[in-house]
Amino acid sequence: MGGEFSLIAKYFSPAAPEGFLGVGDDCAMLPLRPGRQWVTSTDLLLQGRHFAADANPQHLGHKALAVNISDLAAMGARPEACLLGLALPKLDENWLQAFSKGFLQYAAQTGCALVGGDTTRSNGGIQISVTVLGTVPAGQALRRNAAQAGDDIWVSGHLGGAHLAWQLSAGAWPEWHARLPEVQAALEQPMPPWQLAQDLIQWAHAGLDISDGLLQDLSHVLQASACGAQLQYAQLPKHPALAGLPAGIQYECVLAGGEVYQLCFMAPRAHRDAIAALGVQQGVPLARVGEITAQSSLLVLDEDGSPIRLPKGGYDHFSSETP
Amino acid sequence: MGGEFSLIAKYFSPAAPEGFLGVGDDCAMLPLRPGRQWVTSTDLLLQGRHFAADANPQHLGHKALAVNISDLAAMGARPEACLLGLALPKLDENWLQAFSKGFLQYAAQTGCALVGGDTTRSNGGIQISVTVLGTVPAGQALRRNAAQAGDDIWVSGHLGGAHLAWQLSAGAWPEWHARLPEVQAALEQPMPPWQLAQDLIQWAHAGLDISDGLLQDLSHVLQASACGAQLQYAQLPKHPALAGLPAGIQYECVLAGGEVYQLCFMAPRAHRDAIAALGVQQGVPLARVGEITAQSSLLVLDEDGSPIRLPKGGYDHFSSETP
Repeated sequence: MGGEFSLIAKYFSPAAPEGFLGVGDDCAMLPLRPGRQWVTSTDLLLQGRHFAADANPQHLGHKALAVNISDLAAMGARPEACLLGLALPKLDENWLQAFSKGFLQYAAQTGCALVGGDTTRSNGGIQISVTVLGTVPAGQALRRNAAQAGDDIWVSGHLGGAHLAWQLSAGAWPEWHARLPEVQAALEQPMPPWQLAQDLIQWAHAGLDISDGLLQDLSHVLQASACGAQLQYAQLPKHPALAGLPAGIQYECVLAGGEVYQLCFMAPRAHRDAIAALGVQQGVPLARVGEITAQSSLLVLDEDGSPIRLPKGGYDHFSSETP
Repeated sequence: MGGEFSLIAKYFSPAAPEGFLGVGDDCAMLPLRPGRQWVTSTDLLLQGRHFAADANPQHLGHKALAVNISDLAAMGARPEACLLGLALPKLDENWLQAFSKGFLQYAAQTGCALVGGDTTRSNGGIQISVTVLGTVPAGQALRRNAAQAGDDIWVSGHLGGAHLAWQLSAGAWPEWHARLPEVQAALEQPMPPWQLAQDLIQWAHAGLDISDGLLQDLSHVLQASACGAQLQYAQLPKHPALAGLPAGIQYECVLAGGEVYQLCFMAPRAHRDAIAALGVQQGVPLARVGEITAQSSLLVLDEDGSPIRLPKGGYDHFSSETP
C-alpha cells in the first residue's frame, strides 16, 4: 500500500512473542516445538460472499480468525501463529481500528500470534485471507478417518443459530425476524472450543468442525472412516432461539445450517463420563447425539426411533456463503 | 463454490506426499523435521493490482508461488509446503487448467507440496493468496539484522528486467517497446534461487529477496543491521535488454525496479571464492556488487568512485503494483 503501509502497520504490526523470530524479515520464524507436529489451514473471507459491506468490523476481525481457529480445534491442535492477508478498497481508519481490535483480541485469547501478512489495495471489496498454524503432539491429531463403529458422537455448543441469523438477515422467514438479535452473535462471533479440543485428543478417535452443516460435515467423516451414523434428533443441541419455530425451519437450521464453528467428535463409550466432566469443567456445552454404526448410512431418528425424512438431495442447495 | 468445488478439486486436489498427512482433514499436517525450524510467509496477488485480467494463466500460476518461494529463499529455507486461496469470478476450465499447471509444476520443481487451500467465487476479479512453509536448520536462517561492516554484498540473477517489462507493458518509454519480448519472462516467470539459498546459510550473514527494488530492499537490511553500504554501479548485474537504454531508465530499472525475486546477501570476504564457485556449480549468476560499511549511508558509486545522484526522495513513487 506504499505510503499507506505505515497506517496498516500501526494496527497490525506483528509482535514477536517469545520463541518467534523474524518479524520484519522475509518470513516469520516459528518456534521449535519438539515432539509436536505443525498443522495448518487457510480460509478466504470476501465481502459480498461471506460478509456484507456494512458488517461490524470488530466482529469481522474476530470471525476471520475464529473460522480458522475452528479448523485447528477440529484437529485437537493448539493455536500458535497466524498470517493475515488483507485487501482494502480504501483506507478507513475507523474500520481498521475496529477490525484489528477484533482480530488481535481473539488472537491474544487463543495464544495465536500474528506473525506476518500482506496488505494491498483492492479494486473490489474487502478481501481477507487468514492462515493459521498450530501444533499437536505428534501422531495424536484428531483425524476424519478414525471414527469407529460403536463410538459416541458428540457435538459442542449449539446448532442452528448462525444459519437462522443468516437467513433472517437475508430476508427469509420474515415472520420470525424478531428473533434476529438472539442469534446474531452465533453468526458474527463464533467461539470454537479450541481449549477443549486440545484435551479431547486423549479420548476422541475423530473430529471435525461444523462449518457447512452437521449432516454434510459428518458425512465427510463417515466416508473417510468407512462407517455410518445414527443421530437422535431430540438430543441435538439446538440454539435456544429456535424454540417454537416450524419443524421444517428447525430441521434446516440444525441439520444443514453452516457457520457453526463448533466440534463434532467421536469417542469410545468408555470415556463418556470423562468427556462430560471436561465439558462442565471448561464451561462448554457438550451433547451426546448419537452413535457411529458399521453400516454406511447416515440416519437422523425422531423420538420414536423413526428416520426423519430429509429433503430430496439433502441440503446441498443451502450455501454457507451469503447470496 | 458448492457444486463447482469438484472442478476445482480436479485441478488442485492436494496430494499427500510422504510425511504429510491430513489432506481432506480440517488442517494439513506437516511432517516432523527434527532440528529444523519452520518459517512461513504469505502474499496476495490481485487482478488489476498485481496482474492484468488477460495475464497468461500458466505464468500467473508459476508466479503466484514463485514470489512466495522467493521469501523462503531469502531466509535460506527449504520449501516444504504451500496453501492456495483462490477466488474466481467465474469457472473457466481453460484458465484453471493453465493456472494449476503453472502452479503445480513449479511446486513439484521446488519440492513445495500443495497441502491445502480454499476456493470461492469472487464478485470482483481473480484473487490469489498463497502461504508457503519451509524449514531451515534451527538458528541458521538468513536474517535481515545480521549484516556486518566489511561484508561483501552479492546479488543473484539480473536486475531491471521485470521493471522494464512492467513499464513497457504500461505504455511507458514507447520508443523501446520492441524490447518487451526480451524482458517479459523476467516479469512473468521469476525464478528465485531457492536451492542456492539453502547452501548459502553456511557462509552468508544476512539476506533478503529483491521484490520492491534493490535500494529500497537493501535499506531495510541496513536499518535492521545498523550499518551502511557502498554499491559499485558498474558491477550490478543488469538485464541484457537494458543495454543501450538512456542512463535514467537504466538507473530506475536497476536500482529501483521491483519484482526481481532474486537474492541480495551479505557474506564475509573469506568466503568469496566458495560463493563464486557455488554460483558456477548451480548455474546461478552471482555478482559481487559492493560492501557493507560502518556508516549508515547507502551510496551507489560510478566507475570513477563518485556517488550517483539519485532522484530526490528516492524511487518511492515507483510501485511494484500495476497502476
